[in-house]
Amino acid sequence: MIRDLWLVGIGTGSHAHITLEGQQALRDAAVILLPRKGEGKDDLAALRRRILDDAGASARVLPFDMPVRDDSLPYQDRVSRWHDEIALRWSAAIAEAQIDGPVALLVWGDPGLYDSTLRIAERLSPQPVLRVVPGVTALQALTSAHAIPFNTVNGPVTVTTGRQLRDNGWPDNAETLVVMLDGECSFQQLDPEGLHIWWGAFLGMDEQVLESGPLSEAGPRIVDTRATARAAHGWIMDTYLLRRM
Amino acid sequence: MIRDLWLVGIGTGSHAHITLEGQQALRDAAVILLPRKGEGKDDLAALRRRILDDAGASARVLPFDMPVRDDSLPYQDRVSRWHDEIALRWSAAIAEAQIDGPVALLVWGDPGLYDSTLRIAERLSPQPVLRVVPGVTALQALTSAHAIPFNTVNGPVTVTTGRQLRDNGWPDNAETLVVMLDGECSFQQLDPEGLHIWWGAFLGMDEQVLESGPLSEAGPRIVDTRATARAAHGWIMDTYLLRRM
Ligand SMILES: C[S@@+](CC[C@H](N)C(=O)[O-])C[C@H]1O[C@@H](n2cnc3c(N)ncnc32)[C@H](O)[C@@H]1O
Ligand SMILES: C[S@@+](CC[C@H](N)C(=O)[O-])C[C@H]1O[C@@H](n2cnc3c(N)ncnc32)[C@H](O)[C@@H]1O
Repeated sequence: MIRDLWLVGIGTGSHAHITLEGQQALRDAAVILLPRKGEGKDDLAALRRRILDDAGASARVLPFDMPVRDDSLPYQDRVSRWHDEIALRWSAAIAEAQIDGPVALLVWGDPGLYDSTLRIAERLSPQPVLRVVPGVTALQALTSAHAIPFNTVNGPVTVTTGRQLRDNGWPDNAETLVVMLDGECSFQQLDPEGLHIWWGAFLGMDEQVLESGPLSEAGPRIVDTRATARAAHGWIMDTYLLRRM
Repeated sequence: MIRDLWLVGIGTGSHAHITLEGQQALRDAAVILLPRKGEGKDDLAALRRRILDDAGASARVLPFDMPVRDDSLPYQDRVSRWHDEIALRWSAAIAEAQIDGPVALLVWGDPGLYDSTLRIAERLSPQPVLRVVPGVTALQALTSAHAIPFNTVNGPVTVTTGRQLRDNGWPDNAETLVVMLDGECSFQQLDPEGLHIWWGAFLGMDEQVLESGPLSEAGPRIVDTRATARAAHGWIMDTYLLRRM
C-alpha cells in the first residue's frame, strides 16, 4: 500500500535543473519507482541515474514494467485503461517489495504541466497523501535558452498543445502562444504575417538546438532543422513560443 | 563595463527552490549585484542570504540603491525612466568596484515571467552577453502546493494579470486561467457559476496559505484570508488558478 506518494519534478533535460527540494525528497524517500524502460529513450536513463547520484539518494530503486496500450480501443478508453494499469503496477511493485515509507517518482519538467502522473496517482486506492515538488518546465528552459521574456509587459500568454493549434488555430486576441506536444510543426498552418517564433529542441541537454526569427523565414528553417535532429537522435522533444509583434 | 550578465532564477519563497544550475552560477559569478533594500520586504533579505550561503557563493556582493520613481511622470514614462536609471546604477556600481567578470543578479521565480530584469538589461550599453538560469515560478509553486495539474488533458491555459482580468474579463473560450500580479482579488468581478479556484499566498514560505473550492464559496473566504494575512505581514504575494468545470 502506498501511503505517501511524492512526485518530484526533475526539469527538462539538464541534470542541473533539479532543485534542492527535489534532491532532499529523493534522499528522504524510502523507494524510487522507475519505469524499466525510460519511455523508450535510453539516453534518459543515464540522466535519471545522474540525478539520483548527485542527490546522494541511497533509496532503493524499484523498477516496474510499463504496460502496453491496447490499440484496439478508442483513444480515450485506451489512455484511461493504460493509466489504470500503471497505477496497478505501482501498487503491485510496492506490495511485492514490502515497502513501507514514502514512494517517489521522477517526473519530467514540472509534474503539473502536461503530464499524466497526477492523474494516474488519483487512481490509487486507498488514496495516498500526495506531495508534488515543483520543477523547471520546458517553457522556462525555452525562454531561458533564448534569453527572452515569457510575456510582454502586463500581457497574457496562452500555453497550448500542437493538437489545439491544429484544431482551433490562433486563439482570438492572443498575443503570445507557447506550444508543447507538437509532433507536426503545426505553426505551418498559421498565417505567418506579424508572427515571430522562438523554437528549441532537446532544451537543457547537450544536443540543445535553437532557432528564432520572423515565422515566415524561421518556420521553414525549423522544419528542416527538426527533421535533421530527429533523424540523428531517433526521437525529438521540442517546444516553441510565438508572439505577435 | 558589464560583459557577462547572468539572471539567476531563485524560485518563489523557499530557499530550496534553487536549482543546481543556479547554485553553480552563483559560485561562478565574479560579483552578485543586490538591491540595498530587498524591495522593501526585509524578510526577503534573509532568504537571499540563505540562498547564497547554501550555494557556497564566495563572490563579492555589491549592493546598489534602487532609484525612486518619479511620480510626476505618466505611468509608461515613469517605468521607462526608472528602468533606465536602474541600468545606470548597475553599470556605475560595477565600474566603481572595478569588477571584471560575470555579474549575477538574483531574480524572483523565473526571470522570464512578469519580471523587468531582462528589460532593464536590454538598456545596458554596450550590450552584455546575457545568460538566463531558469527557476521555479509562482505558477508551479501554486499547482504543486495544491497537488493539481496546471492544465486539463490536452487543454490550453491562459496566464494573465489582475489588470487584464479587470479590463477584459474572462477570455473567450478559456478553460483554465492563472492570474498573477493581482492586488485586488479581481476574481470578484467574474460570474462564479461553474468556476473553481485554487489560491495561494506566500507560496514556498513558512507563511504559505492555501484556499480552494467553487468560486462562489471560496471567493469570499479568500478575500478575508488575504486581508488578514496581509495585515499580519504588512505585505502579501498571491496568485490563483481558475478552471471552468
Ligand atoms: C508530456 S509533456 C511534459 C512537459 C513537462 N512536464 C514540463 O514541465 O516541461 C512533453 C512536451 O514538453 C516539451 N518538452 C519537454 N522537454 C523538452 C525539452 N528538453 N526540449 C524541448 N521541449 C521539451 C515538448 O513540447 C514535449 O512534447
Ligand atoms: C513581478 S511577478 C514575478 C513572478 C516571478 N518571476 C515568478 O516566476 O513567479 C510577482 C507576482 O508573482 C506572484 N508570486 C510570486 N511569488 C509568489 C509567492 N511566493 N506566492 C504567491 N504568489 C507569488 C504574485 O502573483 C506576484 O504578484
